[in-house]
Amino acid sequence: MLFAVQQPWFLFLITFTFCQPHPSSSSNHSTYYHNQHQHQVDHRVHVHHASLSLSSSSAFPSPPNIIVMLMDDMGFGDLGINGDPNYDTPNLDALASQGMLLTNFYSSSPLCSPSRASLLTGRLPIRNGFYTDNVDGRNSYTPQEIVGGISDYELTLPELLSFGSHYHSALIGKWHLGHRPQYLPLKHGFDMFWGSTNCHFGPYDNKARPNIPIFENNNMVGRLFEDFAINKATFTSNLTQIYTRKALEYIQSNIDSNNRPFFLLWSPDATHAPSYRSEKFINSSRRGSPYGDALVELDSAVGQIVQLIQSNPRTANNTLIFFTSDNGAALVSKNDAGSSGPFLCGKQTTFEGGFRVPGIAWWPGKIKSGSKFHKAASFVDLFPTLLDLAEVPLPTDRDFDGSSLAPFWLSQTDSQLNSAPDRPIYFYRGNRLMAIRYGLYKAHFWTWTNSWAQFKTGIDFCPGSFVQGITTHTPSNYTSSPRLFHLGRDPSEHYVIPVNSAEYKTIIPTFFQLYQNHSDTLIPGEPVLNWCDNSVMHWSPQGCEEYNKCLPVPPSNPYKCEWPH
Amino acid sequence: MLFAVQQPWFLFLITFTFCQPHPSSSSNHSTYYHNQHQHQVDHRVHVHHASLSLSSSSAFPSPPNIIVMLMDDMGFGDLGINGDPNYDTPNLDALASQGMLLTNFYSSSPLCSPSRASLLTGRLPIRNGFYTDNVDGRNSYTPQEIVGGISDYELTLPELLSFGSHYHSALIGKWHLGHRPQYLPLKHGFDMFWGSTNCHFGPYDNKARPNIPIFENNNMVGRLFEDFAINKATFTSNLTQIYTRKALEYIQSNIDSNNRPFFLLWSPDATHAPSYRSEKFINSSRRGSPYGDALVELDSAVGQIVQLIQSNPRTANNTLIFFTSDNGAALVSKNDAGSSGPFLCGKQTTFEGGFRVPGIAWWPGKIKSGSKFHKAASFVDLFPTLLDLAEVPLPTDRDFDGSSLAPFWLSQTDSQLNSAPDRPIYFYRGNRLMAIRYGLYKAHFWTWTNSWAQFKTGIDFCPGSFVQGITTHTPSNYTSSPRLFHLGRDPSEHYVIPVNSAEYKTIIPTFFQLYQNHSDTLIPGEPVLNWCDNSVMHWSPQGCEEYNKCLPVPPSNPYKCEWPH
Repeated sequence: MLFAVQQPWFLFLITFTFCQPHPSSSSNHSTYYHNQHQHQVDHRVHVHHASLSLSSSSAFPSPPNIIVMLMDDMGFGDLGINGDPNYDTPNLDALASQGMLLTNFYSSSPLCSPSRASLLTGRLPIRNGFYTDNVDGRNSYTPQEIVGGISDYELTLPELLSFGSHYHSALIGKWHLGHRPQYLPLKHGFDMFWGSTNCHFGPYDNKARPNIPIFENNNMVGRLFEDFAINKATFTSNLTQIYTRKALEYIQSNIDSNNRPFFLLWSPDATHAPSYRSEKFINSSRRGSPYGDALVELDSAVGQIVQLIQSNPRTANNTLIFFTSDNGAALVSKNDAGSSGPFLCGKQTTFEGGFRVPGIAWWPGKIKSGSKFHKAASFVDLFPTLLDLAEVPLPTDRDFDGSSLAPFWLSQTDSQLNSAPDRPIYFYRGNRLMAIRYGLYKAHFWTWTNSWAQFKTGIDFCPGSFVQGITTHTPSNYTSSPRLFHLGRDPSEHYVIPVNSAEYKTIIPTFFQLYQNHSDTLIPGEPVLNWCDNSVMHWSPQGCEEYNKCLPVPPSNPYKCEWPH
Repeated sequence: MLFAVQQPWFLFLITFTFCQPHPSSSSNHSTYYHNQHQHQVDHRVHVHHASLSLSSSSAFPSPPNIIVMLMDDMGFGDLGINGDPNYDTPNLDALASQGMLLTNFYSSSPLCSPSRASLLTGRLPIRNGFYTDNVDGRNSYTPQEIVGGISDYELTLPELLSFGSHYHSALIGKWHLGHRPQYLPLKHGFDMFWGSTNCHFGPYDNKARPNIPIFENNNMVGRLFEDFAINKATFTSNLTQIYTRKALEYIQSNIDSNNRPFFLLWSPDATHAPSYRSEKFINSSRRGSPYGDALVELDSAVGQIVQLIQSNPRTANNTLIFFTSDNGAALVSKNDAGSSGPFLCGKQTTFEGGFRVPGIAWWPGKIKSGSKFHKAASFVDLFPTLLDLAEVPLPTDRDFDGSSLAPFWLSQTDSQLNSAPDRPIYFYRGNRLMAIRYGLYKAHFWTWTNSWAQFKTGIDFCPGSFVQGITTHTPSNYTSSPRLFHLGRDPSEHYVIPVNSAEYKTIIPTFFQLYQNHSDTLIPGEPVLNWCDNSVMHWSPQGCEEYNKCLPVPPSNPYKCEWPH
C-alpha cells in the first residue's frame, strides 16, 4: 500500500494550517471556515500555496479538474456495460472501458436528497441531518414545503476543494439540499449554479403548489412548465439539452480563462419520472420508451462532454470524471423507470436495487483503462477520495464515514487496485440502520418495503419480486438474528443463509460487532427533514420580480412532515 | 442486403445434386443420406468438389472451422459482459469484445435435451420429436431410463457439414440426445465423441441406476464417480480439465494433419448442478461458490482454446467460435445455479430466464470486432447460419424453423448487422406453444411455473420472483387474451400491458396471426420422450467388458415416463 488510507502524513501538516475548533451547534457554520469564505480570494491564495507545497511532497498528480456526473434515479442495470440488453449507452460503456468500472458502488441513501447530501458532505444522512425522526425508519427528502436544508455546519465538497486547492465549482442541474435562500448552492461552496432546486414531478399548479423555479446562482430565471417546458403527456423537454450546453460552456470557460482547477457537479434529472427527452431523441432508444430515450440523450451528452475534455490539452489528461446515480432505479414508476439489473427491488428500499448504483471513474493516464474495482464503496468514500486526489486534506474536526480510495484507484494493476481493505457499507432508512454489508456478506437487521396500505394503492417498490420474510410490508425487526445474504453467489438477495448453518454462525458475530460499534459511536446530527410549511414553497423566490413570477406567499403554518415510506 | 436469407441462389443448384425425396416415416433415416453415409469417403469427395465450385461463385469466405461451445445451464447473467457484477469471465468478455455479442439470443427449449436437439437439427423440439405428449405442456429430456433418442430421419449439423463441405466433426462433452447404441453421436454425424451421454446429477448407485459412462466414440471407457471422479460433497472433479485437454488435442490434430475444416461441439457440463471444478480452481471466483469456480474454470478453458486457435495460421482467421448455453440458469438449484441477470425465472420456464442465453460469435476479420446483434434469434437460426457460413445448402425435403443470419453477421456496420428482419421466436413447453416473441413484444398464450404440489416441496423455478397471473402454479390459458410484454422497456416481464390499452389492441392481432399460422402449418414429429424402461439404462454399454464395468440388465418393462414439470 502506497499511502495510509485514512490520514496521509501530510494531511496533519495542512490541517494544522487552517483547521479550527468546530462549533458546538450544528446550526451554525464553522466560524473559521465562514471567515475564510468571506475573504475568499485571500484565503484561496493562501491555501493554493499550501496545496502546491503539498504537491511536491506527495506522489499524487497535480489536482485534476473533477466532474461528477450525478444521474437521477438511474439504475445500476441501465448501462449496457452493466448488462442492459438494450445497450442504449455507448458513450458510458466507452467511458467505463477507457476508465474504471465500479461493480460494487453504493449511494448512501435509497432516496435523492439524503444521498446527494452524503455525496457533498462525506457523511451519512444520519450525521449530516438529512433524515427525519418524525417516524422511525422512514425515507424523507426535500419537497417544496420542506423547512430545512443543508446545515451551515457541514463542509461541502466544493467548499473544501475551494478552500484547500483553490477550485472553482459549479452545479449544473438539480440541487435538492434545500431551496430556501440560506440553503442554495452558492451558500454552500459552489461558485456557480444553474438548475432547479427540487424535483420536476409535481403536481405543481402555482395555486396549491408553485411551479419549481430554475435558478441562475441565487436568483430565479424562470419556472419549469412555464418558461422551461416539460410536457408530461409526451415526455418531452429541452432541459437535458440546456444542462448539457451549460456544462460545455462552463468547461470551455475554464479552458479559456481559468488557471484554477474546476469542480463541476453535473446533475441532470431527465431519468426521474416523468422522464423526458428532447424532440430529436424521441424514439432514439432500443428500449423503446421515453425513459430509454432520456437515457440515450444523457449518454449522448456524456459523449459531448468527454469529447470536449479530450479535445483540449488543458483538460485531456487532467480531468477526472466520476459517473454515478443518486439512488437505485425508481421501480415504483414501472415502465417509466430504470433497471435494477439483477438486484432486488429499487429506490426507497435498503435492498441492493435501492443502493447499488452505476460507478465509473475516468482519468486517462492515471486510472487504468479497462480496470474494474470490485470492493464495496459508497458516496461517503467518494468524498474523501476526490479530496485526496485534489490534494485537499480531510478536516479533522468532525467524523466522516468513508475513507480515501485514491491510492488504490491510481494503481496500475488489478490486484493492487482490488487490494483495498473491505469497509462496511451502512444501509439506513431515515433514522434506522436497516442493513450492513461487509465483504461479500450483507446482514439485514430490519426489512421493509412499504406498508400494506400503500402497497394496496399500487405503490410497489419491488415489482415482480417477492422474497419471504425479506420484501416485507410490515417493518420486520431482525436485530436479534439478522437475515444474512452472500452477495457474491446471490447478488439478488434471494437465498437467506439459514440461521442455524455453520456459515451463518461464523459470519454473523462480525455483523453484530459492526452494528454495535457503529451505533455506539455515532452521534446523529439534528434532523433537518422534520418540518414542513407551505409558506416556504417557491412562491416568490429571489429574482421573481424581474420575470414577473412572484406569487402571493401564504401565512406560515409549520407542521411535521408526513413521510409514508 | 447482400444475399437472399433463406435460399441463396446457389443452394438450389447444390440441392439438386444430392437431395432426394425424404421418407414418409420419421423413424427411418433418409434413404439417400444413409447410402451416402455408408460410402462416406466417396461421397465426401463428391460433395467437396461441389462445395469448392460453390466457393468460387459465392461471396462467403472459404468454409471456416466451426467450434460451438455449448454450456450446461449457464445463465445469461453469468457473463461479466452480460452484467454479472462478479466479472468471473474475463476470457468470455474478451471473446465478445473481439467478436459479436448477441443480446437477444434464445435456446429452443428451457431444458437440455430438446434444446440440444434443436441446435443440431435446426428444428424445434415439436418437430424433431424431443418432447412428450404423455401430459400436455410438460418439459421432458433424456434420463437414463429413456427409450427414445434422436430420430434417424433428422439430419444433424455434423451430418450436413460432412455431407456438404467435407467437415470432420467431434463432440467433446455431453451429448444428451439418447444413449442407446443407435442414438450415439457417431450414428448421427460425428466422427469422434468423447464424453457422457447423460447428466451427472444422479442419484446413481449401480443398483437402482447405474453410474453414467464416459464414451470414447461408441464404447464406454469408464464410469462417472468410479473412473472419472466427481465429488458432490466438495464440488470437485477434473472433468473440465479433461474436456479441455481433449478439445485442445482435437484442434491440434486438425491443425497438424487435416486439410478438412472441422466442426467441434464442445459441451462441458460443469455448470450443471451439482457444479464442479478441479482442485486448482477451488476459491478461484469472486462469486465465491463452487458454481463460480466452475465458471472461472470454463472461462479459463475458453481462453486456452482461443489461444490455440489464434496461435496457428491455419486456424487464426479461419475459425468461427460460437458460445452459448443449452438453456437459462437452473435457479431451482439456488446457490448452486447460474444467474438469469435481469430476466424472469429460469430453466424449465418459458419466461426470458428460461430461454435467453449467452451468445457470442467470434471470427476475426469476418465478424466485426465489438459488434452487437440485437435482433431476436435462436438455436434454430444458428443451424442454418452455420450451414450457410460453411457453404452447405439447407435441405429442401423438410421444414426448418429458422433462417440464416450469415449475411447480417458478416456485415461490417452495426446498422447493416441489425437490419436483419424480425423473426418470431416460439417458446414451447413440451407439446404446448406457450409464448411467442416478435420484435420487442412477447405474448404469453399460456403461463405456468410448476404445480403447487411441486412448489410446496421447495422446487421453485422462479425464486425471488412473483408476477401476478404470470408466475402461476396452475397452467393458465390466455390463448383468448395473451399476456403481452414489451421486452425493450420491460426485459424482466414485470409489467403486463393492459388488455384494454391501445397498445395491446394494436399489437395483439399480429400475435394471434403468428400463433394461428404456426399452429396451422406445423406437423409435429413423433414424440421420442414418451417411453421409459429401466432395462435401457447404462447397465452394460458397449465396451463394458474391457473395463469390467458390465452390470446385469433387468428385464424390459416399458412404461410411460412421468414428467412433472
